[in-house]
Amino acid sequence: MAKKVTFDYWKHLYSRRTREMVSSEIRDLLSLSAREDIISFSGGLPEVRALNYQKLEKYIKRSLKTDGDITLQYGDSNGYYPLRTRLIEVMALEGIKIDEEDIIITTGGQQALDLLAKVFIDSGDYIITEAPTYTGALNAFKAYEAKIAGISSDKDGIIVSEVEKKLKYFYDNNKIVKFIYLVPNFSNPSGFTLSMARRKELLKIVKKYNTVIIEDNPYGMLRYEGRPVPSIKEMDINGDNKSVIYISTLSKLFAPGFRIGWIVAPHLIIEKLILGVQSSVLCSSSFSQRIAYEYFSDPSWKDNITEFIKIYHKRRNAMLQALEENLSGIATWSKPEGGFFIWLKVPHYINTRDMLADAVGRKVAFVPGTGFYSDGRGKDAARLAFCTETSENIKKGIKILSEIIKEKIKLYESFPR
Amino acid sequence: MAKKVTFDYWKHLYSRRTREMVSSEIRDLLSLSAREDIISFSGGLPEVRALNYQKLEKYIKRSLKTDGDITLQYGDSNGYYPLRTRLIEVMALEGIKIDEEDIIITTGGQQALDLLAKVFIDSGDYIITEAPTYTGALNAFKAYEAKIAGISSDKDGIIVSEVEKKLKYFYDNNKIVKFIYLVPNFSNPSGFTLSMARRKELLKIVKKYNTVIIEDNPYGMLRYEGRPVPSIKEMDINGDNKSVIYISTLSKLFAPGFRIGWIVAPHLIIEKLILGVQSSVLCSSSFSQRIAYEYFSDPSWKDNITEFIKIYHKRRNAMLQALEENLSGIATWSKPEGGFFIWLKVPHYINTRDMLADAVGRKVAFVPGTGFYSDGRGKDAARLAFCTETSENIKKGIKILSEIIKEKIKLYESFPR
Repeated sequence: MAKKVTFDYWKHLYSRRTREMVSSEIRDLLSLSAREDIISFSGGLPEVRALNYQKLEKYIKRSLKTDGDITLQYGDSNGYYPLRTRLIEVMALEGIKIDEEDIIITTGGQQALDLLAKVFIDSGDYIITEAPTYTGALNAFKAYEAKIAGISSDKDGIIVSEVEKKLKYFYDNNKIVKFIYLVPNFSNPSGFTLSMARRKELLKIVKKYNTVIIEDNPYGMLRYEGRPVPSIKEMDINGDNKSVIYISTLSKLFAPGFRIGWIVAPHLIIEKLILGVQSSVLCSSSFSQRIAYEYFSDPSWKDNITEFIKIYHKRRNAMLQALEENLSGIATWSKPEGGFFIWLKVPHYINTRDMLADAVGRKVAFVPGTGFYSDGRGKDAARLAFCTETSENIKKGIKILSEIIKEKIKLYESFPR
Repeated sequence: MAKKVTFDYWKHLYSRRTREMVSSEIRDLLSLSAREDIISFSGGLPEVRALNYQKLEKYIKRSLKTDGDITLQYGDSNGYYPLRTRLIEVMALEGIKIDEEDIIITTGGQQALDLLAKVFIDSGDYIITEAPTYTGALNAFKAYEAKIAGISSDKDGIIVSEVEKKLKYFYDNNKIVKFIYLVPNFSNPSGFTLSMARRKELLKIVKKYNTVIIEDNPYGMLRYEGRPVPSIKEMDINGDNKSVIYISTLSKLFAPGFRIGWIVAPHLIIEKLILGVQSSVLCSSSFSQRIAYEYFSDPSWKDNITEFIKIYHKRRNAMLQALEENLSGIATWSKPEGGFFIWLKVPHYINTRDMLADAVGRKVAFVPGTGFYSDGRGKDAARLAFCTETSENIKKGIKILSEIIKEKIKLYESFPR
């Protein structure tokens, strides 16, 4: 076997980004939670078992039979053309109308973020995100050494007046903001949805300050109540089409195991992204793309979405109800109209990282809030994913979390002040 | 439809690497060559039709039946554990003996290069490569703004005495060389194999100058004649295991459409690479990895390799023979003992880029040599891939290229000097 080198001999060779990356304590705790006997509110794992496996086999059989050599071969760096046309049809259902040259297929939504970071960010550049925001986006942007300004959000999404203040501040200091990243629908981790009024306002100020929005929309089709709000991309297309880059993924509409995402942008930006794909993966999987093409060519894909919505809606309700029954008046939480996540705020003196250690000991997992900020905030918050567990487990798990919170309150109140 | 913005409104937002990336004229010409009626010596496209599609279907059926939820779900960032154990078995056949924590699975060999660049390269850092070398590697390293020193190779591979001179020069000037990248077996594009003596010498000087080798070995198992040379990784494992990072891919042993590659390195480096995967794609495709696991669990995978070798061996012979018949005394070329590529050198006054335009007009494609250098060399060279076309087409295509070369010589000689 290979000799183990136990000291980091390679330190002098690493890049700055690598020397600054440290393995996360939270990640270590959560890797424990992958055990089967744990009730997990941590990962946003979709309910892939709701898919029809027989149909999947049929899609694959057909792909190999009619196009085996394409399905198994290298593909175009901008993605399999027939799949691009299908995704354009899917987006048209949500009001986004584009051409085949305005879209590029990526290896999951995460690669969309990595590629956009590659195309836009130099070391030390400024970007703006919601706060809290998706950890994977923070990781992608930090890997290119962006300086991240996190702007708070409330139940109507990112606070746009604060974004404007920040943009003005940077402008006055001769600094360019490369982009503003947000998940406007049922945000990860907050569950908040950006209101129509704020979408309009945000688009206006982004144009005023000559920057762009990255609109990340993995959950838009998974709405369980309320009325859909038009995407910012749709508004921009109806205008001058200069200010919004839209990204999404099939991880929630189909399955994460295929690693298919995509980016919609003006074609001049797409051309830059193609070069990014070539330098990082050559092309996305032809096999995955061909299967996804078959999936969206079968009209029953919409029934799958209906089924997903039914499952997640029930689980969301179960979690909201359990929170109400156990934590009313003790903690607060978001009431998402769709998506996968509820954002829980506990009394300020409780550190959710400590809570996680207790919770894993009692076989429940969640993600502590600090992972969703770039500036240390979020100690008194937690992301609860309701997408993965059954309603029964959700009830059980929330009960256990509530007990831990109540114990911590009791302990705090027992201290002399 | 979305409004077309025809000027690059976003220029002020791009990163330096993006502003420096230009779409390649060669790439545009080659995209023409994707047409079916072209005899293509350009891409290194494996003969995927030699795979047994019925068996593939069986693998997929079994994966969905026994492990559907794993196959369709997000997976571990370091790769599907059962596939890692299979790849360890495959490498053991070549003499590389490692543990499960010394390997990470990537989205194709290209992502292996991207991740290593991410982990090691800061803007302006120095690296060394063979010259000529794999274009995809140059693209990956340039995307992280490396400064690339290309060291010439001959039929015994990279000229190690020149590597040492360069390392000494950098050392004397207080500059660190982050790594030395090379394809030691049947190199892309040259077809050269690094001799045993040079492997030993290279490993010695790399240790002396405290840097590492990235040994890229996509073609090692595709040897058509001659005796295998031990990998540099194997030599290093038998020593202190500090100086070699090994990468490979399933694109040539199985199929490119699945996008599976891997990196072997000491586990402390693997831990850094895991963070790189998380920030760039979260994880590689569970679906692809599961199918690859099934492929290598069926002992018949070795018969596939035997079949691949038979096919490519015949094509290599056809190309070498056609070159001998048509260009003997006019041009020179490498005689690879394996792999996919022959490196052709034409008289110095012929520019292979101009040749390509003529060739595409006459329905033959290849890659001009300049794409394999970072410093403008290679104008009188071309990479000819023999893996894709039948022997008959190879004969036809080489004849046409020879005619073009002869015309250019005639033209040159008709000029008064």
